Amino acid sequence: MAKNSKQSNDREFFDTFFPGLVDDIVKENENDKETGDAVRHMREVLEYNVPGGKRNRGLSVIGSLRHLVSPDKLTEEDAKTAIILGWCVEWLQAFFLVADDIMDESLTRRGKPCWYKKAGVGNIAINDFLLIEATIYKLLRKHVHCKPYYVDVLDLFHETLDLITKPGNNFENFTVERYKAIVKFKTAFYSFYLPVALAMFMAGIKDIQSHENAKEILLTMGEFFQIQDDYLDCYGDPVVTGKVGTDIEENKCSWLIVQTLQRISTEQMKILKEHYGVKNSASSEKVKALYHELNLKKVYHEHEEESYKRILELISQKSANLPKEMFLEFVKKIYKRDK
Amino acid sequence: MAKNSKQSNDREFFDTFFPGLVDDIVKENENDKETGDAVRHMREVLEYNVPGGKRNRGLSVIGSLRHLVSPDKLTEEDAKTAIILGWCVEWLQAFFLVADDIMDESLTRRGKPCWYKKAGVGNIAINDFLLIEATIYKLLRKHVHCKPYYVDVLDLFHETLDLITKPGNNFENFTVERYKAIVKFKTAFYSFYLPVALAMFMAGIKDIQSHENAKEILLTMGEFFQIQDDYLDCYGDPVVTGKVGTDIEENKCSWLIVQTLQRISTEQMKILKEHYGVKNSASSEKVKALYHELNLKKVYHEHEEESYKRILELISQKSANLPKEMFLEFVKKIYKRDK
Repeated sequence: MAKNSKQSNDREFFDTFFPGLVDDIVKENENDKETGDAVRHMREVLEYNVPGGKRNRGLSVIGSLRHLVSPDKLTEEDAKTAIILGWCVEWLQAFFLVADDIMDESLTRRGKPCWYKKAGVGNIAINDFLLIEATIYKLLRKHVHCKPYYVDVLDLFHETLDLITKPGNNFENFTVERYKAIVKFKTAFYSFYLPVALAMFMAGIKDIQSHENAKEILLTMGEFFQIQDDYLDCYGDPVVTGKVGTDIEENKCSWLIVQTLQRISTEQMKILKEHYGVKNSASSEKVKALYHELNLKKVYHEHEEESYKRILELISQKSANLPKEMFLEFVKKIYKRDK
Repeated sequence: MAKNSKQSNDREFFDTFFPGLVDDIVKENENDKETGDAVRHMREVLEYNVPGGKRNRGLSVIGSLRHLVSPDKLTEEDAKTAIILGWCVEWLQAFFLVADDIMDESLTRRGKPCWYKKAGVGNIAINDFLLIEATIYKLLRKHVHCKPYYVDVLDLFHETLDLITKPGNNFENFTVERYKAIVKFKTAFYSFYLPVALAMFMAGIKDIQSHENAKEILLTMGEFFQIQDDYLDCYGDPVVTGKVGTDIEENKCSWLIVQTLQRISTEQMKILKEHYGVKNSASSEKVKALYHELNLKKVYHEHEEESYKRILELISQKSANLPKEMFLEFVKKIYKRDK
């Protein structure tokens, strides 16, 4: 087996692919007299927005494939394709994040200004995120066109686009829980099911039942992952997570506020109305004190335990022909995470 | 042959498909208690933005297919598929137009407010145009998945997305001509080549040379079509075109201004700088007077003649195995058009 297809090197190996994939898209015309400046702009869009995340989604493709295909049968070519598909998942996320940041009028992303906030970008960011999307299909065409699973891969990316754009977060008469359910489903689909489904298609697993089973397990995990994100925004250690939470100040519909609304007294509600969504740290502290009164840390840890049990049950009931270890690896990464 | 596949009825038949295609996307969940309001929003997005154009692009798919497949061989099923593919082209244009209007900060489109300008829409329009895009792939999956040309169709839509999003119009050091060349190419691709290429794939014509030939002919036509658009914005009869031109007031990089810049004296330049891009009709009239001095009507008609000859030459040289009549039908529709 080739050195590069060993699991321990996956993260390192994964990262080495990015420059070549950008070159695939821009190199040919980068020094063109007519369009060179446009192509160099495209390079900047990709280099600013695609890397810089944790790359866990992208790495899950090769990670899952290693559970589906035995090491002696996994060719170097397949390992490379899995890494490229992994980058396409990262690309897809970049596309959504740039679009979301414009819609949400966010200020920073991954510790730097949101792309649309950069000097000279603004509304062109709309063209730029479509460009990120377009280049996914360009990479797939170049690297996956000849594979028997090309159509399945395209359908999967299209399905993700469809789910992500389902309206839901803009309707006043939506309950908070319904909103959260939709948002969770959106993120869970491309963060958990998409990478595994890509690996399954690579491994020749196409049957609907296997995909339905994997989807049920992974979306349940993804839902909990989102709740964790909301919890860590408030209770995570900024030194470990690398970011200071702003959900309270930004009036976000977080899992913590949903829990709060279920437990709150009329008097506490007054405090909440006065301080939630207010951009100063004194107000944030008032809301956090309220969370403390309501014992939300404990509520969360109980939820974590329950969710953990439920997911293990689901894995034992639903994995059927799929390797349990593939799902358990996700469980190990997610539960008790602190970043 | 079935009544519905007769050419004369194409436009009428085409229009009857729209409600059913919207139903394909929304009907299942429209009365759902949980997501019904979101789905009804989707219906509104589609009904507001997809119809209402001239539908020439969409009609070109079935129109071209009739030249590629003899009437006795064209099944009703194929005619229907061609019409659905035609609607997908209209859907694609709606997606681009909603996005463009946000980027250009336009006010009206097809005689009504731009979607993002409607009360309560705003930034959600970004989600909404992605939703229009996502539903294209949903329609294709539903209606074309089982066809041997499904992958070719997907690749073609992806290629269009790629071309449309190529940056180009936002670079100060771009010459006006270069900008126009890029814009023209963008529009020409999806307005002229895309519908014909779809018909070609339906007819089983997959070879690269045939597609290259068709592309060369159709992009040249598309380029002229854009120039006409610019001409009609200024010289068209609003009663006939249905719109009052605003290119001068909106400081648009129109073909007329490009021609002006090539012929202008230092003194005329002063007038232009003072009045181009100024939002009042007195200024517009000054610019129009300048166009008159420079004899731009004549310049245009000469260009039209030349372009007409060139395109006929191209058709006779490059159509090869493709029916000349298919291209000539476009020529008849475009040249000397007044709307």
